[in-house]
Amino acid sequence: MEAYLDNSATTRPCGAAVQAVADALTEGWHNPSALYKPAMLAQKRMEQARETCLRAAGAAGERLIFTGSGTEADNLAILGLMRGVRKPARVLMLQVEHPAVLACAEALTRMGHEVLEIPVDGQGLCDTGKLAELLNGETRLICVMQVNNETGAVQPLEEIVSLRNRLAPEAAVHVDGVQGFLRVPLAFTRLGIQSYAFSGHKIHGPKGVGGLIVRRDLRLSPIIHGGGQEGGWRSGTENTPGIEGLAAAVAAFPGDGAARMRGLKLRLWSLLREAIPGVAVNGPDPEDPRSAPHILNVSFPPVRSQTMLFALEGRGVYVSAGSACASHKQKTSRVLGAMGIGTGRADSALRFSLSPMTTPEEIDWAAACCAEQYAVLSRYVRR
Amino acid sequence: MEAYLDNSATTRPCGAAVQAVADALTEGWHNPSALYKPAMLAQKRMEQARETCLRAAGAAGERLIFTGSGTEADNLAILGLMRGVRKPARVLMLQVEHPAVLACAEALTRMGHEVLEIPVDGQGLCDTGKLAELLNGETRLICVMQVNNETGAVQPLEEIVSLRNRLAPEAAVHVDGVQGFLRVPLAFTRLGIQSYAFSGHKIHGPKGVGGLIVRRDLRLSPIIHGGGQEGGWRSGTENTPGIEGLAAAVAAFPGDGAARMRGLKLRLWSLLREAIPGVAVNGPDPEDPRSAPHILNVSFPPVRSQTMLFALEGRGVYVSAGSACASHKQKTSRVLGAMGIGTGRADSALRFSLSPMTTPEEIDWAAACCAEQYAVLSRYVRR
Repeated sequence: MEAYLDNSATTRPCGAAVQAVADALTEGWHNPSALYKPAMLAQKRMEQARETCLRAAGAAGERLIFTGSGTEADNLAILGLMRGVRKPARVLMLQVEHPAVLACAEALTRMGHEVLEIPVDGQGLCDTGKLAELLNGETRLICVMQVNNETGAVQPLEEIVSLRNRLAPEAAVHVDGVQGFLRVPLAFTRLGIQSYAFSGHKIHGPKGVGGLIVRRDLRLSPIIHGGGQEGGWRSGTENTPGIEGLAAAVAAFPGDGAARMRGLKLRLWSLLREAIPGVAVNGPDPEDPRSAPHILNVSFPPVRSQTMLFALEGRGVYVSAGSACASHKQKTSRVLGAMGIGTGRADSALRFSLSPMTTPEEIDWAAACCAEQYAVLSRYVRR
Repeated sequence: MEAYLDNSATTRPCGAAVQAVADALTEGWHNPSALYKPAMLAQKRMEQARETCLRAAGAAGERLIFTGSGTEADNLAILGLMRGVRKPARVLMLQVEHPAVLACAEALTRMGHEVLEIPVDGQGLCDTGKLAELLNGETRLICVMQVNNETGAVQPLEEIVSLRNRLAPEAAVHVDGVQGFLRVPLAFTRLGIQSYAFSGHKIHGPKGVGGLIVRRDLRLSPIIHGGGQEGGWRSGTENTPGIEGLAAAVAAFPGDGAARMRGLKLRLWSLLREAIPGVAVNGPDPEDPRSAPHILNVSFPPVRSQTMLFALEGRGVYVSAGSACASHKQKTSRVLGAMGIGTGRADSALRFSLSPMTTPEEIDWAAACCAEQYAVLSRYVRR
């Protein structure tokens, strides 16, 4: 028995995505910028893929720039916007943003901009009171993720947009939606944000492709310069197999996926709570709608994350201790630290992340293995 | 009968590449940054792919950063190097570089650097005398492509490196090898250049993946910031299907591919010359070793490129008028202009580009169709 519960690191490409990639490699492989018919068909399929993704985000009629990753999409939104702002300005970023956002701060500072972090509360949610204090007339960009990748905290985007409208109307709101796209409802245009980044491989699409949705009226400079593909915002021959695989995954994502994941996540939480004394959830309560349907972050003190991780791997259960991006650094989670969670509990945190492919059997197996390994390891630690 | 002779725009992915992508999508899809065994296997396969590419470039032991395209690799080499140069410096670019290189000039200028173009001669080859005049102690970067994408001119890299060593020893040499990789010999380390960009989809690999080879001692800043993948030089979850597809294409590229392509290109040139009065080659003589084995650029005045292109498409012959990247702009080729080729001849230029998959039958069919269409169209134009 195996249980793959690291879907926030990456997902298994679905059959439709694999087929779409294969078709684009074997049949529709022409360069969409060329002028003969097979190339124009490739172009047409790419535009259909664009429409599919835009509609799924409630962004029909807006602009979608395909990129090589969610990270590139975040970089394009942030650096591409702020390079066009000539006067020194203020940029706000949620303290628990993904490194794809936070790591842009240095480049922004070099451009002369001021970057400040918006604190989060004990559940990892944006402290909107503090945000209100930080917003001023010089603010040109607010970066808030839709769903935190470690805790599953769903950020209050509507409230943030409304604060922006009132206190810093010239500021754009960029949303990193890599962990939220399709799993948490989104109405891009209605919400009134300026840009939204997403990634293929988190939704059963292929790796190597992502996208940035931007409002038609947003002024953006490219970060990759060249032949002028993607409307000039992202040069380089278009990754048509990746793009078509991404759109196929979007189209195949089940409408009831979020509800099913939430059901399984609550089942997992309930099984863990029954079996393991002192297990604590990091992030909003799993029943709270501000907890994303697919991420459960829990601590099993005194067993350290790495120990539990390897023990679970031995039983075919694949989870992670925080984000895959930071896994090799082996440091205490920055996200949990920002939430005021102490080192002991943070160092015993595990992230379980689900997908619509997750089965009840996987959940039961993972819970049973956690209980079993906790019983062994906690005794060992206590001795 | 069909003849696809637009391999410099893109190539049909080879069987080995398609299989490698499919395997990585269906079996090896784990996140290589995760810590469990299937993820570490994905990591290991990626490192093997890296070795394969490095060895093919004569760069064993150097660094290879996988990117989302050849364009991104060029941008990383140029902007990543020059962002670390704090004092205003001089950057030289061959006048006929690809837009992926030339379009970086604006960003470089904004950083305070001076960008100057190195002229080419009538064959599209670097004017090394002029280069010597432009090199000075402030020069920090020289960008010279290995093979020109429109004419197939093979640039004199050894001579350029030797001029650099003598006149501007602190300057790095960056080579855009997108049109040369595997088709023209390269010994990266021995040659003494600092960086080399290549792309998967020009060598029968997948789109959406490229690479930048850099000398171990080169100081480079990232242009995409985030989780620190690819040694911190290119953040974002690694595109393992693309990377494995690329390496499979490299491994499958036939050792005698260049010789076979040159033979077929000479056959095409000889057939065209026999059948079409006044046909002229743009670039070095096809028999000259400074003409790449796979690109033949010829003009059929007075028939305009677009007219000939569409006529040939009707016969199943796919070629291009210059580069695919510039195809929608419909302007006279910047490259041919830089070579001093007049508008009449430049506006009737067609680029035939071969690959190791090109067959003698395709060549004969293309030549016959050119002769046939030329006979019809040139009469029409003259009337």
